[in-house]
Amino acid sequence: MLTVPLCSSLCSRLFFCSCPSSRSLPKVVKRRVNALKNLQVKCAHIEAKFYEEVHELERKYAALYQPLFDKRSDIVKAAYEPTDEECEWKADEEEELTDEMKEKAKLEEEKKDEEKEDPKGIPEFWLTVFKNVDLLSDMLQEHDEPILKHLQDIKVKFSDPGQPMSFTLEFHFEPNDFFTNTVLTKTYKMRSEPDESDPFSFDGPEIMSCTGCTIDWTKGKNVTLKTIKKKQKHKGRGTVRTVTKTVPNDSFFNFFTPPEVPENGELDEDSEAVLAADFEIGHFIRERIVPRAVLYFTGEAIEDDDDDYDEEGEEADDEEGEEEADEENDADYDPKKDAAPPAECKQQ
Amino acid sequence: MLTVPLCSSLCSRLFFCSCPSSRSLPKVVKRRVNALKNLQVKCAHIEAKFYEEVHELERKYAALYQPLFDKRSDIVKAAYEPTDEECEWKADEEEELTDEMKEKAKLEEEKKDEEKEDPKGIPEFWLTVFKNVDLLSDMLQEHDEPILKHLQDIKVKFSDPGQPMSFTLEFHFEPNDFFTNTVLTKTYKMRSEPDESDPFSFDGPEIMSCTGCTIDWTKGKNVTLKTIKKKQKHKGRGTVRTVTKTVPNDSFFNFFTPPEVPENGELDEDSEAVLAADFEIGHFIRERIVPRAVLYFTGEAIEDDDDDYDEEGEEADDEEGEEEADEENDADYDPKKDAAPPAECKQQ
Repeated sequence: MLTVPLCSSLCSRLFFCSCPSSRSLPKVVKRRVNALKNLQVKCAHIEAKFYEEVHELERKYAALYQPLFDKRSDIVKAAYEPTDEECEWKADEEEELTDEMKEKAKLEEEKKDEEKEDPKGIPEFWLTVFKNVDLLSDMLQEHDEPILKHLQDIKVKFSDPGQPMSFTLEFHFEPNDFFTNTVLTKTYKMRSEPDESDPFSFDGPEIMSCTGCTIDWTKGKNVTLKTIKKKQKHKGRGTVRTVTKTVPNDSFFNFFTPPEVPENGELDEDSEAVLAADFEIGHFIRERIVPRAVLYFTGEAIEDDDDDYDEEGEEADDEEGEEEADEENDADYDPKKDAAPPAECKQQ
Repeated sequence: MLTVPLCSSLCSRLFFCSCPSSRSLPKVVKRRVNALKNLQVKCAHIEAKFYEEVHELERKYAALYQPLFDKRSDIVKAAYEPTDEECEWKADEEEELTDEMKEKAKLEEEKKDEEKEDPKGIPEFWLTVFKNVDLLSDMLQEHDEPILKHLQDIKVKFSDPGQPMSFTLEFHFEPNDFFTNTVLTKTYKMRSEPDESDPFSFDGPEIMSCTGCTIDWTKGKNVTLKTIKKKQKHKGRGTVRTVTKTVPNDSFFNFFTPPEVPENGELDEDSEAVLAADFEIGHFIRERIVPRAVLYFTGEAIEDDDDDYDEEGEEADDEEGEEEADEENDADYDPKKDAAPPAECKQQ
C-alpha cells in the first residue's frame, strides 16, 4: 500500500490500518467513492437545515422556560417569597443521621440563623454557582467576588427568527459600587452551514465570533486594570528610576472584552486559544448553567458528571475462563484476540 | 461547615469547596432553595417535551436523507453506476505529489486494476467502515470478516409518531453461505422523561433496552459458537477423559443477542457493562456511521475526531511576564492565582 498522508497520520493503529487511500483503489471504484462523497456533501446541507430547525425549537422552548427562570430570579433576589407548598421537598438524607449528628446539625443551623439574621432571598447565589463550576472558577479572581455578589440573574436571549443565528448572555446586576451598568452582555454569533472548502467537517452550528460590552467602572474600581511599578535603567548614566504603568489585570470581567476577530478572520495563536476557551465558556453558560443553576448551587449537577465517569470505567476489566479451546469454524483463529474479548461478547 | 456526604465526596477541590450543603444554610434560605429545586423539576419535564419534538424532527429529516442513502446503497452494491458528473470531485492532494510518486501511484493503480478486473460497486465497503472505527473493530473477529463482506447497507428506522420512542438498525445482506436472513435487526427502546425518583439526572432521551433477532445460520457456519475439548478427572479412580462441549464464541454477530433485561429491571454487573457498551455502539452507528459512512470508509471522519483532541490540548500552556506587580484595587491579592492565569484573561 502506498503511504498516504491523510490516512497514515490519522489511524491510531497503523499496523491494521485499512483506510483505503483513494489512490490504492481501482479507478472505477475511486470514481464511485467520489460519487458517494458528493452525496455526503448534500447530506451536510440537509443537516444544516435540521440544525436551523432545532434552533427554532430552542427559541420556542426558551419562551416556555422563561416564566420558571423569572420566578427563580425573583426568589434569588427576594422579590418573591415562595409559599410553603412551593418549598416542600421530599425528605433528604437527614433521615439517616444519628441523633448526635442531628443535634450538631441543629446547633449549626441555629448558629447560622443568628449570624445572618433574616437573609434576603438566596445570598451569593450566582457567585456560589461560579465557584462550583471549574470552568468558571478558573476565571475568578478574589477581587471579582465582591462584585459577583451583586449578580442577580443570567439570561439567554436568542436572535429573532430570520436573523443570523446568535445568542446573547445577559448578566443582570443589582445597583453596586463597582460599575453603573445594570446589565452586562456577551453576544455569540453562530453559523449553521457547511464550509465550502471543507463540507465534511460540519457537525452542527458553531460559534464564529463574540462581542462584549463596555463596563462603566466607578473611579478606582476597575479590577481589569492594575498599576505596576517598573524599574528603568538609564542607558548612559546607569541610574535607576521607578515608573508607574497601568496594565491589564486578571479578572472574570475580561470576559466582556474578548479579542476582536479581524476582517480577514486571521488570528494569532494566543487570541485563537483565548477565543476557543471563551466560546466553550459561553456555550457552557447557555447550555448548562442557565438551565440548571440551582443544581450547580447545591452541587447536585456536579454529581451527575462523576457518575458518568464511573460507568465508563467499569467496562475495562475482563476475566477469562481456563478452558482449552478448539476452534471449529475458523481456521485462522487468533488466540491474541481471545485474550481480550470485546465487551460486547463477554457474556454470550 | 458540617461534613456533608453529597458535597464532600464530589467536589474535586475539597479545600475550596463552596457547595452549600442544605444544612449549612439558614432555614429560610434552605426553604427558598427547595422552591428553586421544584422549579427545576418543572424545567426537566419541559426539556423532555423538547427532546420529543427533536425526535419528531429527526424522523422528518430521516425521510429527507433517505433518497441519498438509497443512492449510496445502490452505488455500493452495483445496482447503479454513477454518471461522470456525479463522480466529479475537486482535485485532491495528488497535485502536490512529485513526479516519481505519481509514477509509483500510477503503477500501483494499474496493478490494482489488473488484480480485480471490473470490480462491482464498492467492494467491502461496510467491512472497511467497521475496520476503521475502533468501537466496531474491537468487536470484529477474523471469522466475522468473510460474512461482513456481504453486508450491503445499514438503515436506521425510527418508531412511528405516537409510538414509544425507539429506533431499529437494519443490517441488509446479499445472499450468502452463512445464514439465510437478508436483514438482521437490532431495536433500541428509548425513554424521554425524567425519572420520578431522580428528576435532575435527566439529560435527554436515553436508551433503555434493546432486542436483537434470530440468525438462521447455515449448518456449521455459526461463528457465535465454538466446540471445545475439556479434560475431566474421575473423582474416585483418577482417570482422565476428554469431553466435547459447545460454548459461546467471540463474534460481532453476538451483537444480535444482547443480554435480556429482566422484568424487575435488575441486572448483574457484567450484563450491565455489556449493555452499556451495546447502547454506546447502537447510538454511534445511528448517529455517526449511517449518516456519514463514506467518511469512515475513506478515513476522513477519523480526522475530525483527532482535530478535536488537539484543540483541547492547546489551552494548557501559559507563560508569565516578568513584571513586578503592585496590586492597587485588591488588598487580598493572592500571588498563587496570578501564577496560573485563566486562559480567558491571558491575552488581555
